[in-house]
Amino acid sequence: MRAIMNHRSIRKYKSDPIDKSILNDILLAGTRASTTGNMQVYSIVVTTDQEIKKQLAPCHFNQGMVTQAPVVLTFCADFNRFNKWCLHRKATPGYDNFLSFLTAAIDALLVAQNVCIAAEDQGLGICYLGTTTYTAEKIIEILKLPKGVVPVTTVVVGYPYETPDLTDRLPLASIIHQEVYQDYSEGDIDQMYSAKEALPLTQKLLQENNKETLAQIFTDNRYTKKDNVAFSKSLLKVLEQQGFMNNEM
Amino acid sequence: MRAIMNHRSIRKYKSDPIDKSILNDILLAGTRASTTGNMQVYSIVVTTDQEIKKQLAPCHFNQGMVTQAPVVLTFCADFNRFNKWCLHRKATPGYDNFLSFLTAAIDALLVAQNVCIAAEDQGLGICYLGTTTYTAEKIIEILKLPKGVVPVTTVVVGYPYETPDLTDRLPLASIIHQEVYQDYSEGDIDQMYSAKEALPLTQKLLQENNKETLAQIFTDNRYTKKDNVAFSKSLLKVLEQQGFMNNEM
Repeated sequence: MRAIMNHRSIRKYKSDPIDKSILNDILLAGTRASTTGNMQVYSIVVTTDQEIKKQLAPCHFNQGMVTQAPVVLTFCADFNRFNKWCLHRKATPGYDNFLSFLTAAIDALLVAQNVCIAAEDQGLGICYLGTTTYTAEKIIEILKLPKGVVPVTTVVVGYPYETPDLTDRLPLASIIHQEVYQDYSEGDIDQMYSAKEALPLTQKLLQENNKETLAQIFTDNRYTKKDNVAFSKSLLKVLEQQGFMNNEM
Repeated sequence: MRAIMNHRSIRKYKSDPIDKSILNDILLAGTRASTTGNMQVYSIVVTTDQEIKKQLAPCHFNQGMVTQAPVVLTFCADFNRFNKWCLHRKATPGYDNFLSFLTAAIDALLVAQNVCIAAEDQGLGICYLGTTTYTAEKIIEILKLPKGVVPVTTVVVGYPYETPDLTDRLPLASIIHQEVYQDYSEGDIDQMYSAKEALPLTQKLLQENNKETLAQIFTDNRYTKKDNVAFSKSLLKVLEQQGFMNNEM
Protein backbone atom coordinates (compact mmCIF):
# COMPACT_ATOMS: atom_id res chain seq x y z
CA MET A 1 0.00 0.00 0.00
CA ARG A 2 2.87 2.34 0.88
CA ALA A 3 4.53 1.61 -2.49
CA ILE A 4 1.26 2.29 -4.32
CA MET A 5 0.53 5.56 -2.55
CA ASN A 6 4.11 6.83 -3.01
CA HIS A 7 4.35 6.14 -6.72
CA ARG A 8 5.90 8.82 -8.88
CA SER A 9 7.28 8.35 -12.39
CA ILE A 10 11.07 8.62 -12.34
CA ARG A 11 12.75 10.22 -15.35
CA LYS A 12 16.35 10.45 -14.07
CA TYR A 13 18.29 7.37 -12.99
CA LYS A 14 21.58 6.52 -11.31
CA SER A 15 23.90 4.33 -13.35
CA ASP A 16 23.84 1.60 -10.65
CA PRO A 17 22.80 -1.75 -12.13
CA ILE A 18 19.96 -3.78 -10.60
CA ASP A 19 21.07 -6.88 -8.75
CA LYS A 20 20.05 -10.04 -10.62
CA SER A 21 18.20 -11.47 -7.62
CA ILE A 22 16.23 -8.25 -7.10
CA LEU A 23 15.28 -8.16 -10.78
CA ASN A 24 14.29 -11.80 -10.54
CA ASP A 25 12.07 -11.10 -7.52
CA ILE A 26 10.21 -8.25 -9.19
CA LEU A 27 9.65 -10.24 -12.38
CA LEU A 28 8.42 -13.18 -10.31
CA ALA A 29 5.98 -10.79 -8.59
CA GLY A 30 4.73 -9.98 -12.10
CA THR A 31 3.83 -13.60 -12.73
CA ARG A 32 1.54 -13.69 -9.68
CA ALA A 33 -0.95 -11.37 -11.43
CA SER A 34 -4.28 -12.84 -12.53
CA THR A 35 -4.32 -13.88 -16.18
CA THR A 36 -7.23 -15.04 -18.34
CA GLY A 37 -7.82 -18.74 -17.66
CA ASN A 38 -4.28 -18.85 -16.24
CA MET A 39 -3.06 -18.97 -19.85
CA GLN A 40 -0.30 -16.40 -19.13
CA VAL A 41 -0.45 -15.05 -22.67
CA TYR A 42 2.25 -12.42 -22.23
CA SER A 43 6.03 -12.10 -22.36
CA ILE A 44 8.52 -9.65 -20.89
CA VAL A 45 11.61 -8.69 -22.87
CA VAL A 46 14.34 -7.60 -20.44
CA THR A 47 16.80 -5.31 -22.21
CA THR A 48 20.00 -4.21 -20.46
CA ASP A 49 22.37 -4.14 -23.44
CA GLN A 50 23.33 -0.53 -24.17
CA GLU A 51 23.39 -1.11 -27.94
CA ILE A 52 19.82 -2.46 -28.02
CA LYS A 53 18.61 0.27 -25.66
CA LYS A 54 20.07 2.82 -28.11
CA GLN A 55 18.09 1.20 -30.92
CA LEU A 56 14.93 1.35 -28.81
CA ALA A 57 15.42 4.99 -27.81
CA PRO A 58 13.94 6.56 -31.00
CA CYS A 59 10.84 4.33 -30.56
CA HIS A 60 10.37 6.17 -27.28
CA PHE A 61 10.97 9.61 -28.80
CA ASN A 62 14.59 9.61 -27.53
CA GLN A 63 13.60 10.14 -23.90
CA GLY A 64 16.93 10.02 -22.02
CA MET A 65 15.78 7.46 -19.48
CA VAL A 66 15.66 4.67 -22.10
CA THR A 67 19.44 4.59 -22.32
CA GLN A 68 20.04 5.93 -18.80
CA ALA A 69 17.99 3.41 -16.78
CA PRO A 70 19.80 0.08 -16.40
CA VAL A 71 16.78 -2.04 -17.39
CA VAL A 72 14.10 -1.60 -20.06
CA LEU A 73 11.14 -3.99 -19.80
CA THR A 74 8.92 -4.41 -22.85
CA PHE A 75 5.62 -6.05 -21.91
CA CYS A 76 4.04 -7.95 -24.78
CA ALA A 77 0.70 -9.54 -25.51
CA ASP A 78 1.94 -13.02 -26.48
CA PHE A 79 -0.13 -15.88 -27.91
CA ASN A 80 2.92 -17.31 -29.71
CA ARG A 81 4.00 -19.53 -26.82
CA PHE A 82 0.45 -20.72 -26.12
CA ASN A 83 -0.21 -21.39 -29.83
CA LYS A 84 3.00 -23.42 -30.10
CA TRP A 85 1.97 -25.43 -27.04
CA CYS A 86 -1.46 -26.12 -28.59
CA LEU A 87 0.08 -27.20 -31.91
CA HIS A 88 2.51 -29.56 -30.14
CA ARG A 89 -0.39 -31.05 -28.19
CA LYS A 90 -2.78 -31.96 -31.00
CA ALA A 91 -4.94 -28.89 -30.34
CA THR A 92 -5.99 -26.25 -32.89
CA PRO A 93 -5.58 -22.73 -31.49
CA GLY A 94 -8.19 -20.13 -32.45
CA TYR A 95 -6.38 -17.08 -31.10
CA ASP A 96 -5.61 -15.12 -34.27
CA ASN A 97 -8.37 -12.58 -33.68
CA PHE A 98 -8.95 -9.18 -32.11
CA LEU A 99 -10.47 -10.52 -28.89
CA SER A 100 -7.39 -12.64 -28.29
CA PHE A 101 -5.14 -9.62 -28.76
CA LEU A 102 -7.08 -7.71 -26.11
CA THR A 103 -7.10 -10.72 -23.77
CA ALA A 104 -3.32 -10.98 -24.07
CA ALA A 105 -2.87 -7.21 -23.72
CA ILE A 106 -4.88 -7.29 -20.47
CA ASP A 107 -2.66 -10.10 -19.16
CA ALA A 108 0.49 -8.15 -20.03
CA LEU A 109 -0.72 -4.93 -18.40
CA LEU A 110 -1.73 -6.49 -15.08
CA VAL A 111 1.68 -8.16 -14.97
CA ALA A 112 3.38 -4.83 -15.76
CA GLN A 113 1.67 -3.09 -12.86
CA ASN A 114 2.65 -5.89 -10.46
CA VAL A 115 6.27 -5.56 -11.60
CA CYS A 116 6.17 -1.79 -11.08
CA ILE A 117 4.75 -2.00 -7.57
CA ALA A 118 7.22 -4.72 -6.61
CA ALA A 119 10.08 -2.62 -8.03
CA GLU A 120 9.01 0.46 -6.09
CA ASP A 121 8.64 -1.66 -2.97
CA GLN A 122 12.35 -2.53 -3.42
CA GLY A 123 13.37 1.14 -3.62
CA LEU A 124 13.58 1.19 -7.41
CA GLY A 125 12.00 3.83 -9.61
CA ILE A 126 9.95 3.20 -12.75
CA CYS A 127 8.45 5.07 -15.66
CA TYR A 128 5.90 3.80 -18.18
CA LEU A 129 6.51 4.65 -21.83
CA GLY A 130 3.18 5.12 -23.61
CA THR A 131 5.09 5.47 -26.87
CA THR A 132 5.12 1.65 -27.14
CA THR A 133 1.78 1.44 -28.96
CA TYR A 134 2.78 4.33 -31.26
CA THR A 135 5.91 2.66 -32.57
CA ALA A 136 5.04 -1.02 -32.10
CA GLU A 137 6.10 -1.90 -35.65
CA LYS A 138 9.67 -0.71 -35.10
CA ILE A 139 9.88 -2.29 -31.61
CA ILE A 140 8.78 -5.63 -33.10
CA GLU A 141 11.69 -5.41 -35.54
CA ILE A 142 14.30 -4.48 -32.91
CA LEU A 143 13.19 -7.04 -30.31
CA LYS A 144 12.57 -9.72 -32.98
CA LEU A 145 8.98 -10.33 -31.87
CA PRO A 146 7.40 -13.17 -33.88
CA LYS A 147 3.80 -13.46 -35.10
CA GLY A 148 1.38 -13.64 -32.16
CA VAL A 149 3.39 -11.09 -30.16
CA VAL A 150 2.64 -7.34 -29.86
CA PRO A 151 4.35 -4.91 -27.44
CA VAL A 152 1.75 -3.05 -25.35
CA THR A 153 3.79 -1.08 -22.86
CA THR A 154 7.38 -0.46 -21.79
CA VAL A 155 8.73 0.30 -18.33
CA VAL A 156 12.20 1.63 -17.52
CA VAL A 157 13.54 0.57 -14.11
CA GLY A 158 16.48 1.74 -12.03
CA TYR A 159 17.55 3.59 -8.92
CA PRO A 160 16.07 7.13 -8.85
CA TYR A 161 18.35 10.13 -9.34
CA GLU A 162 15.51 12.54 -8.53
CA THR A 163 12.71 12.79 -5.98
CA PRO A 164 9.81 14.46 -7.75
CA ASP A 165 6.63 15.52 -5.95
CA LEU A 166 3.53 13.37 -6.14
CA THR A 167 1.64 14.21 -9.33
CA ASP A 168 -1.82 15.79 -9.05
CA ARG A 169 -4.91 13.65 -9.62
CA LEU A 170 -8.54 14.53 -10.24
CA PRO A 171 -10.69 14.23 -7.10
CA LEU A 172 -11.74 10.60 -6.50
CA ALA A 173 -15.40 11.49 -7.11
CA SER A 174 -14.53 12.45 -10.72
CA ILE A 175 -13.56 8.95 -11.72
CA ILE A 176 -16.04 6.95 -9.62
CA HIS A 177 -19.65 6.28 -10.60
CA GLN A 178 -22.08 4.90 -8.03
CA GLU A 179 -24.12 1.92 -9.31
CA VAL A 180 -24.26 3.12 -12.94
CA TYR A 181 -22.48 5.83 -14.97
CA GLN A 182 -23.47 9.38 -14.07
CA ASP A 183 -22.65 11.62 -17.01
CA TYR A 184 -20.94 14.97 -16.41
CA SER A 185 -22.53 18.41 -16.60
CA GLU A 186 -20.48 21.48 -17.50
CA GLY A 187 -20.59 22.39 -13.81
CA ASP A 188 -19.20 18.96 -12.85
CA ILE A 189 -16.33 19.38 -15.31
CA ASP A 190 -15.53 22.86 -13.99
CA GLN A 191 -15.41 21.56 -10.43
CA MET A 192 -13.41 18.42 -11.23
CA TYR A 193 -10.69 20.20 -13.22
CA SER A 194 -10.50 23.42 -11.17
CA ALA A 195 -7.67 22.29 -8.86
CA LYS A 196 -5.59 20.98 -11.80
CA GLU A 197 -6.16 24.19 -13.76
CA ALA A 198 -5.11 26.33 -10.81
CA LEU A 199 -1.76 24.52 -10.30
CA PRO A 200 1.40 26.63 -10.72
CA LEU A 201 2.57 23.96 -13.21
CA THR A 202 -0.49 24.64 -15.36
CA GLN A 203 0.16 28.39 -15.34
CA LYS A 204 3.76 27.73 -16.36
CA LEU A 205 2.67 25.45 -19.23
CA LEU A 206 0.14 28.00 -20.51
CA GLN A 207 2.84 30.66 -20.68
CA GLU A 208 5.43 28.36 -22.25
CA ASN A 209 3.00 27.08 -24.88
CA ASN A 210 1.25 30.38 -25.40
CA LYS A 211 -2.18 28.75 -24.98
CA GLU A 212 -5.40 29.92 -23.42
CA THR A 213 -6.38 26.63 -21.76
CA LEU A 214 -4.60 23.51 -20.49
CA ALA A 215 -6.91 21.35 -22.61
CA GLN A 216 -5.53 23.05 -25.73
CA ILE A 217 -2.02 21.97 -24.78
CA PHE A 218 -3.27 18.37 -24.88
CA THR A 219 -5.26 18.63 -28.11
CA ASP A 220 -2.90 20.93 -30.06
CA ASN A 221 0.55 19.93 -28.78
CA ARG A 222 0.76 16.72 -26.79
CA TYR A 223 -1.85 14.31 -28.13
CA THR A 224 -3.01 15.62 -31.48
CA LYS A 225 -5.65 14.09 -33.72
CA LYS A 226 -3.09 13.91 -36.54
CA ASP A 227 -0.71 11.78 -34.47
CA ASN A 228 -3.51 9.67 -33.01
CA VAL A 229 -4.89 8.85 -36.44
CA ALA A 230 -1.44 7.99 -37.80
CA PHE A 231 -0.67 5.79 -34.78
CA SER A 232 -4.11 4.13 -34.99
CA LYS A 233 -3.50 3.15 -38.59
CA SER A 234 -0.05 1.81 -37.84
CA LEU A 235 -1.26 -0.10 -34.77
CA LEU A 236 -4.11 -1.75 -36.68
CA LYS A 237 -1.58 -2.71 -39.39
CA VAL A 238 0.63 -4.22 -36.67
CA LEU A 239 -2.29 -6.28 -35.31
CA GLU A 240 -2.95 -7.57 -38.82
CA GLN A 241 0.74 -8.32 -39.44
CA GLN A 242 1.16 -10.09 -36.08
CA GLY A 243 -1.86 -12.27 -36.78
CA PHE A 244 -4.61 -10.83 -34.61
CA MET A 245 -7.15 -9.64 -37.18
CA ASN A 246 -8.60 -12.85 -38.61
CA ASN A 247 -12.07 -12.15 -37.31
CA GLU A 248 -13.93 -14.67 -39.47
CA MET A 249 -14.43 -18.41 -39.00
CA MET B 1 4.97 -7.42 -1.94
CA ARG B 2 3.29 -9.80 0.48
CA ALA B 3 -0.11 -8.98 -1.05
CA ILE B 4 1.25 -9.53 -4.57
CA MET B 5 2.89 -12.87 -3.79
CA ASN B 6 -0.18 -14.16 -1.92
CA HIS B 7 -2.72 -13.32 -4.61
CA ARG B 8 -5.32 -15.94 -5.38
CA SER B 9 -8.61 -15.37 -7.19
CA ILE B 10 -11.51 -15.69 -4.75
CA ARG B 11 -14.75 -17.20 -6.07
CA LYS B 12 -16.71 -17.52 -2.80
CA TYR B 13 -17.48 -14.52 -0.62
CA LYS B 14 -18.94 -13.79 2.80
CA SER B 15 -22.00 -11.55 2.78
CA ASP B 16 -20.19 -8.91 4.92
CA PRO B 17 -20.28 -5.51 3.25
CA ILE B 18 -17.10 -3.49 2.69
CA ASP B 19 -16.74 -0.48 4.96
CA LYS B 20 -17.10 2.77 2.99
CA SER B 21 -13.74 4.11 4.18
CA ILE B 22 -11.94 0.90 3.19
CA LEU B 23 -13.56 0.95 -0.24
CA ASN B 24 -12.58 4.61 -0.56
CA ASP B 25 -8.96 3.80 0.33
CA ILE B 26 -8.61 1.05 -2.24
CA LEU B 27 -10.19 3.18 -4.99
CA LEU B 28 -7.88 6.04 -4.05
CA ALA B 29 -4.95 3.63 -4.36
CA GLY B 30 -6.22 2.98 -7.89
CA THR B 31 -5.88 6.63 -8.82
CA ARG B 32 -2.17 6.64 -7.92
CA ALA B 33 -1.40 4.42 -10.93
CA SER B 34 0.50 5.97 -13.85
CA THR B 35 -1.77 7.15 -16.66
CA THR B 36 -0.87 8.43 -20.12
CA GLY B 37 0.06 12.10 -19.82
CA ASN B 38 -1.77 12.11 -16.48
CA MET B 39 -5.00 12.35 -18.48
CA GLN B 40 -6.73 9.73 -16.28
CA VAL B 41 -8.86 8.51 -19.15
CA TYR B 42 -10.69 5.82 -17.19
CA SER B 43 -13.70 5.46 -14.91
CA ILE B 44 -14.72 2.93 -12.29
CA VAL B 45 -18.38 2.00 -11.87
CA VAL B 46 -18.96 0.78 -8.31
CA THR B 47 -22.02 -1.47 -8.20
CA THR B 48 -23.38 -2.69 -4.87
CA ASP B 49 -27.11 -2.67 -5.64
CA GLN B 50 -28.35 -6.26 -5.74
CA GLU B 51 -30.78 -5.55 -8.58
CA ILE B 52 -28.08 -4.15 -10.87
CA LYS B 53 -25.68 -6.94 -9.91
CA LYS B 54 -28.39 -9.42 -10.98
CA GLN B 55 -28.63 -7.66 -14.34
CA LEU B 56 -24.85 -7.85 -14.73
CA ALA B 57 -24.65 -11.53 -13.78
CA PRO B 58 -25.54 -12.96 -17.24
CA CYS B 59 -22.84 -10.71 -18.78
CA HIS B 60 -20.43 -12.67 -16.63
CA PHE B 61 -21.90 -16.06 -17.54
CA ASN B 62 -23.86 -16.14 -14.26
CA GLN B 63 -20.83 -16.80 -12.12
CA GLY B 64 -22.19 -16.80 -8.56
CA MET B 65 -19.66 -14.32 -7.23
CA VAL B 66 -21.19 -11.43 -9.21
CA THR B 67 -24.25 -11.41 -6.97
CA GLN B 68 -22.49 -12.89 -3.92
CA ALA B 69 -19.60 -10.41 -3.60
CA PRO B 70 -20.71 -7.12 -2.02
CA VAL B 71 -18.99 -4.93 -4.62
CA VAL B 72 -18.63 -5.22 -8.39
CA LEU B 73 -16.14 -2.81 -9.98
CA THR B 74 -16.36 -2.23 -13.73
CA PHE B 75 -13.19 -0.59 -15.04
CA CYS B 76 -13.77 1.44 -18.19
CA ALA B 77 -11.64 3.10 -20.81
CA ASP B 78 -13.16 6.60 -20.64
CA PHE B 79 -12.44 9.53 -22.96
CA ASN B 80 -15.92 10.99 -22.35
CA ARG B 81 -14.89 13.09 -19.35
CA PHE B 82 -11.68 14.30 -21.03
CA ASN B 83 -13.51 15.12 -24.28
CA LYS B 84 -16.13 17.10 -22.38
CA TRP B 85 -13.37 19.03 -20.60
CA CYS B 86 -11.70 19.81 -23.94
CA LEU B 87 -14.98 20.99 -25.48
CA HIS B 88 -15.70 23.24 -22.49
CA ARG B 89 -12.20 24.71 -22.77
CA LYS B 90 -12.14 25.76 -26.45
CA ALA B 91 -10.08 22.70 -27.40
CA THR B 92 -10.92 20.18 -30.13
CA PRO B 93 -10.40 16.60 -28.93
CA GLY B 94 -9.01 14.07 -31.42
CA TYR B 95 -9.61 10.94 -29.34
CA ASP B 96 -12.24 9.09 -31.37
CA ASN B 97 -9.78 6.57 -32.77
CA PHE B 98 -8.37 3.11 -32.05
CA LEU B 99 -5.13 4.36 -30.48
CA SER B 100 -7.11 6.41 -27.98
CA PHE B 101 -9.20 3.37 -27.03
CA LEU B 102 -6.03 1.39 -26.30
CA THR B 103 -4.49 4.31 -24.39
CA ALA B 104 -7.59 4.53 -22.21
CA ALA B 105 -7.78 0.74 -21.79
CA ILE B 106 -4.16 0.72 -20.56
CA ASP B 107 -4.98 3.46 -18.03
CA ALA B 108 -8.01 1.49 -16.77
CA LEU B 109 -6.08 -1.76 -16.41
CA LEU B 110 -3.17 -0.31 -14.43
CA VAL B 111 -5.71 1.30 -12.11
CA ALA B 112 -7.57 -2.01 -11.76
CA GLN B 113 -4.43 -3.85 -10.68
CA ASN B 114 -3.62 -1.15 -8.10
CA VAL B 115 -7.14 -1.48 -6.69
CA CYS B 116 -6.80 -5.27 -6.51
CA ILE B 117 -3.47 -5.19 -4.69
CA ALA B 118 -4.72 -2.53 -2.28
CA ALA B 119 -7.86 -4.61 -1.64
CA GLU B 120 -5.85 -7.76 -0.93
CA ASP B 121 -3.55 -5.76 1.31
CA GLN B 122 -6.68 -4.92 3.36
CA GLY B 123 -7.64 -8.59 3.71
CA LEU B 124 -10.22 -8.49 0.93
CA GLY B 125 -10.43 -11.03 -1.88
CA ILE B 126 -10.84 -10.24 -5.57
CA CYS B 127 -11.55 -11.98 -8.85
CA TYR B 128 -11.16 -10.58 -12.35
CA LEU B 129 -13.97 -11.29 -14.82
CA GLY B 130 -12.53 -11.66 -18.32
CA THR B 131 -16.09 -11.90 -19.63
CA THR B 132 -16.23 -8.08 -19.68
CA THR B 133 -14.80 -7.76 -23.19
CA TYR B 134 -17.08 -10.57 -24.45
CA THR B 135 -20.29 -8.89 -23.41
CA ALA B 136 -19.28 -5.22 -23.45
CA GLU B 137 -22.34 -4.24 -25.49
CA LYS B 138 -24.76 -5.49 -22.84
CA ILE B 139 -22.69 -4.04 -19.95
CA ILE B 140 -22.74 -0.64 -21.69
CA GLU B 141 -26.53 -0.81 -21.72
CA ILE B 142 -26.90 -1.87 -18.07
CA LEU B 143 -24.37 0.60 -16.69
CA LYS B 144 -25.54 3.40 -19.03
CA LEU B 145 -22.05 4.02 -20.44
CA PRO B 146 -22.07 6.96 -22.87
CA LYS B 147 -20.07 7.34 -26.10
CA GLY B 148 -16.33 7.44 -25.35
CA VAL B 149 -16.63 4.79 -22.63
CA VAL B 150 -15.92 1.04 -23.01
CA PRO B 151 -15.73 -1.51 -20.15
CA VAL B 152 -12.42 -3.41 -20.26
CA THR B 153 -12.44 -5.51 -17.12
CA THR B 154 -14.55 -6.21 -14.04
CA VAL B 155 -13.40 -7.12 -10.54
CA VAL B 156 -15.59 -8.52 -7.77
CA VAL B 157 -14.43 -7.62 -4.25
CA GLY B 158 -15.40 -8.92 -0.82
CA TYR B 159 -14.28 -10.89 2.19
CA PRO B 160 -13.14 -14.39 1.17
CA TYR B 161 -15.25 -17.42 2.14
CA GLU B 162 -12.58 -19.82 0.85
CA THR B 163 -8.79 -20.12 1.04
CA PRO B 164 -7.70 -21.67 -2.23
CA ASP B 165 -4.12 -22.77 -2.89
CA LEU B 166 -1.82 -20.58 -4.94
CA THR B 167 -2.40 -21.26 -8.64
CA ASP B 168 0.44 -22.80 -10.67
CA ARG B 169 2.48 -20.59 -13.00
CA LEU B 170 4.88 -21.40 -15.82
CA PRO B 171 8.55 -21.19 -14.75
CA LEU B 172 9.78 -17.57 -14.83
CA ALA B 173 12.21 -18.40 -17.64
CA SER B 174 9.23 -19.23 -19.92
CA ILE B 175 7.90 -15.71 -19.94
CA ILE B 176 11.18 -13.75 -19.81
CA HIS B 177 13.34 -13.01 -22.85
CA GLN B 178 16.87 -11.68 -22.35
CA GLU B 179 17.66 -8.64 -24.54
CA VAL B 180 15.45 -9.70 -27.47
CA TYR B 181 12.76 -12.34 -28.00
CA GLN B 182 14.05 -15.90 -28.06
CA ASP B 183 11.52 -18.05 -29.88
CA TYR B 184 10.52 -21.44 -28.46
CA SER B 185 11.60 -24.85 -29.75
CA GLU B 186 9.40 -27.93 -29.26
CA GLY B 187 11.82 -28.96 -26.51
CA ASP B 188 11.39 -25.59 -24.76
CA ILE B 189 7.60 -25.96 -24.85
CA ASP B 190 7.79 -29.50 -23.46
CA GLN B 191 9.97 -28.33 -20.60
CA MET B 192 7.96 -25.19 -19.80
CA TYR B 193 4.58 -26.92 -19.70
CA SER B 194 5.67 -30.22 -18.11
CA ALA B 195 4.98 -29.23 -14.50
CA LYS B 196 1.53 -27.83 -15.39
CA GLU B 197 0.67 -30.93 -17.38
CA ALA B 198 1.70 -33.20 -14.51
CA LEU B 199 -0.53 -31.49 -11.93
CA PRO B 200 -3.27 -33.61 -10.33
CA LEU B 201 -5.71 -30.86 -11.41
CA THR B 202 -4.72 -31.42 -15.04
CA GLN B 203 -5.27 -35.17 -14.74
CA LYS B 204 -8.69 -34.52 -13.22
CA LEU B 205 -9.63 -32.13 -16.05
CA LEU B 206 -8.52 -34.58 -18.74
CA GLN B 207 -10.76 -37.27 -17.26
CA GLU B 208 -13.73 -34.95 -16.73
CA ASN B 209 -13.50 -33.53 -20.24
CA ASN B 210 -12.50 -36.79 -21.89
CA LYS B 211 -9.59 -35.15 -23.69
CA GLU B 212 -6.12 -36.33 -24.57
CA THR B 213 -4.28 -33.08 -23.80
CA LEU B 214 -4.79 -30.05 -21.56
CA ALA B 215 -4.33 -27.77 -24.58
CA GLN B 216 -7.41 -29.36 -26.18
CA ILE B 217 -9.50 -28.36 -23.17
CA PHE B 218 -8.54 -24.75 -23.91
CA THR B 219 -9.06 -24.87 -27.67
CA ASP B 220 -12.15 -27.13 -27.76
CA ASN B 221 -13.99 -26.20 -24.55
CA ARG B 222 -12.84 -23.07 -22.74
CA TYR B 223 -11.65 -20.58 -25.35
CA THR B 224 -12.90 -21.76 -28.73
CA LYS B 225 -12.26 -20.12 -32.09
CA LYS B 226 -16.03 -19.88 -32.62
CA ASP B 227 -16.51 -17.85 -29.42
CA ASN B 228 -13.40 -15.75 -30.00
CA VAL B 229 -14.51 -14.79 -33.50
CA ALA B 230 -18.03 -13.92 -32.32
CA PHE B 231 -16.67 -11.85 -29.41
CA SER B 232 -14.12 -10.14 -31.70
CA LYS B 233 -16.87 -9.03 -34.06
CA SER B 234 -19.04 -7.75 -31.24
CA LEU B 235 -16.13 -5.96 -29.55
CA LEU B 236 -15.12 -4.20 -32.78
CA LYS B 237 -18.76 -3.18 -33.22
CA VAL B 238 -18.73 -1.79 -29.67
CA LEU B 239 -15.59 0.26 -30.39
CA GLU B 240 -17.31 1.68 -33.48
CA GLN B 241 -20.52 2.41 -31.58
CA GLN B 242 -18.70 4.05 -28.65
CA GLY B 243 -16.78 6.29 -31.03
CA PHE B 244 -13.29 4.79 -31.16
CA MET B 245 -12.98 3.76 -34.80
CA ASN B 246 -12.72 7.03 -36.71
CA ASN B 247 -9.22 6.32 -37.93
CA GLU B 248 -9.12 8.93 -40.70
CA MET B 249 -8.40 12.67 -40.50
